[in-house]
Amino acid sequence: MKAGILAIGTELLMGQIVNSNAAYLSRELNALGVGVFYHYTVGDNYERIESHLKTMLKQCDLIFTTGGLGPTLDDITKEVIAGALGLKMHLDQHSLERIEMRFREFNRPMTENNIRQAYFPENAIILDNDMGTAPACIIEAEEGKKAIIVLPGPPKEMTHIFERHIRKFIEKMNPGNIYSSFLSIYGMGESAVEATLMPLFDSQSNPTLATYASIGKVLLRVTSSGLAPEENKHTVEAMTEKIKALVGEYIVSESGEEIDVVVLNQLKERHMKIAFAESCTGGNLAARLIRNSGASEVVECGFVTYSNHAKQTLIHVSEASLSQYGAVSHEVCREMAEGTRKVSGADITVSVTGIAGPNGGSEEKPVGRVYIGIDYLDQVKTYEYTFVGDRETIQNRTVIEALRLVY
Amino acid sequence: MKAGILAIGTELLMGQIVNSNAAYLSRELNALGVGVFYHYTVGDNYERIESHLKTMLKQCDLIFTTGGLGPTLDDITKEVIAGALGLKMHLDQHSLERIEMRFREFNRPMTENNIRQAYFPENAIILDNDMGTAPACIIEAEEGKKAIIVLPGPPKEMTHIFERHIRKFIEKMNPGNIYSSFLSIYGMGESAVEATLMPLFDSQSNPTLATYASIGKVLLRVTSSGLAPEENKHTVEAMTEKIKALVGEYIVSESGEEIDVVVLNQLKERHMKIAFAESCTGGNLAARLIRNSGASEVVECGFVTYSNHAKQTLIHVSEASLSQYGAVSHEVCREMAEGTRKVSGADITVSVTGIAGPNGGSEEKPVGRVYIGIDYLDQVKTYEYTFVGDRETIQNRTVIEALRLVY
Repeated sequence: MKAGILAIGTELLMGQIVNSNAAYLSRELNALGVGVFYHYTVGDNYERIESHLKTMLKQCDLIFTTGGLGPTLDDITKEVIAGALGLKMHLDQHSLERIEMRFREFNRPMTENNIRQAYFPENAIILDNDMGTAPACIIEAEEGKKAIIVLPGPPKEMTHIFERHIRKFIEKMNPGNIYSSFLSIYGMGESAVEATLMPLFDSQSNPTLATYASIGKVLLRVTSSGLAPEENKHTVEAMTEKIKALVGEYIVSESGEEIDVVVLNQLKERHMKIAFAESCTGGNLAARLIRNSGASEVVECGFVTYSNHAKQTLIHVSEASLSQYGAVSHEVCREMAEGTRKVSGADITVSVTGIAGPNGGSEEKPVGRVYIGIDYLDQVKTYEYTFVGDRETIQNRTVIEALRLVY
Repeated sequence: MKAGILAIGTELLMGQIVNSNAAYLSRELNALGVGVFYHYTVGDNYERIESHLKTMLKQCDLIFTTGGLGPTLDDITKEVIAGALGLKMHLDQHSLERIEMRFREFNRPMTENNIRQAYFPENAIILDNDMGTAPACIIEAEEGKKAIIVLPGPPKEMTHIFERHIRKFIEKMNPGNIYSSFLSIYGMGESAVEATLMPLFDSQSNPTLATYASIGKVLLRVTSSGLAPEENKHTVEAMTEKIKALVGEYIVSESGEEIDVVVLNQLKERHMKIAFAESCTGGNLAARLIRNSGASEVVECGFVTYSNHAKQTLIHVSEASLSQYGAVSHEVCREMAEGTRKVSGADITVSVTGIAGPNGGSEEKPVGRVYIGIDYLDQVKTYEYTFVGDRETIQNRTVIEALRLVY
């Protein structure tokens, strides 16, 4: 099946919001075995919505629209679809009652305009919206061979309705069974992953492999479709074994998790406390763990020792090492990890010192030079890196690599 | 002038990345007085790129493409454009030398494929890319009345080239003079800003007002166009004065800066050192300042005192206050700020303690309850908030509000 996504809203063309809906729907549809061929965005304009809708109706089996379901006069998505398909609009009493109820609950006056949200093209399958006033709907065309799926624009409402109603609808329409697994790969770049797995990529028809790269991480999707359910699962598992034979040491999760989640769970299971001493990452490393609920079980504390003075007074780095080797050195990194262990009493400590740039680099120690230290089981190890990128990228790569060392 | 944006890349249709480029370009083009009529996204497919390009060439004066300039065989943007316009491709020696130099700098081997990045349609205006290997270009059509602007996909490279080259090009092509100012508003929601400024919005034709909201921040753009240069400037300044009369106390910058940049500069000018004690924000507050180059001049240190033990041992919060009032309280917040001041010797300290959720809330202290303390000039003040949202939103709102208190 071929799908297209039509986002409707002048605010998108003004650049006031980013069209994250298109990415979400694409990800979910691909995982369901539906190929996405186009994303279009047009403003709240009858002719332009209509002409793009007609183009997509020719080329796609599934058309998703997002936006244009609000109460105001420029919200015209349903009217344009009805016009394009020659359908009449009718009032849906159930939706009207739900909208009225919602206004009573929030104790706000309901305007005449809100009644428009309860009108739908005839024969539409109407889907309740528990997160907002605009119900969604599905309009089938060409005797059920094609469908227009009409979703609200706000991402929370859109994803809620997709999860609750649309996923099932697509599975029924596109019964080709599908099974996917997601491997989180850290410490290896996307091109290196692809080069190493090339023999497996080359022979791909089923299962298929796809990589999604973000900073420090490559997510590898393995998908089998079109077979019996157990065969799909078996095919994915067999391919996963082949992948593990080639890049197993870099696989941090077989369920697509981020490394901070994996490390948090490792520490929880072992009832271990962790502490951090950060210079160039400025608190980002601690924050990465603490963005997860439940971090309080494992995070003892963190020091942001950005100045030399703080390194000396808070975690007992020696003045001698600072002046002899400089703040960005194996020696100071080691003393930061050791000092933090002693002061905090944590089971494992991580220290980071480096030059995030854009200033402060030298020939000997360029921008991107970073040392990471781990103090664990009375052993301190320090590691040297030269990361490439701007300040934010160097900070992010350092955080990911530090978590990988803990892992 | 009418513009359209064509994003090229199968990764967009797979939902691997969000098309933030389209929003960025739309915002900038609107600010330059160029209307954006379409966003299209297609995969790395010759026929589909070509057909969308031809549609846009009929309807738009300015066509922006993003993506498809990489070294691999599926990167075909320039070839398709050359084909559609009947132009030959030629090797640009200057670009080739720059690409070779870049590989030498990073000490990586250059592959045969990278040479493709130095080929361009004949007569293209070639634009150096200082952030990556893919140069951009501008291809004029219909005797300079239309132009295709070919940009790389990675947002950092794209925005860099836009700022450096494209803005000037458009100003020359679209000489309708324009002047904008950008006000950063913190501490007031978008709807409150719009409601307060409604009398000004209502009467808008020139200058125009537009708001862009992100977490904790509303950026207000004031634009005047179509007048003589000094008149545009005067019109914007007069409107800015009216806005300041209504919401002046919430305006943190009149040049659109983020609050962390403004606070960093305030501290630098006053030669002041700042220190942080963070519980629920887990290092994010220190990290927000330290994401800026030059933070070392003003950041003394930070404590991530996530556990009660750390609050007691590192910054001398009393056991009595912890047990009597709980870790999330005015009293503990006050002691965190005071203790941090004493331990760090900083001129100003900020403490944060709260419940970021989703767990840990109670009837008395719900999820989102946050205390922020400021110790400055021998005075400690603490503030209570109840923020709404998920864990990440609560952490982000807390960071922004803490910076606003410092401001």
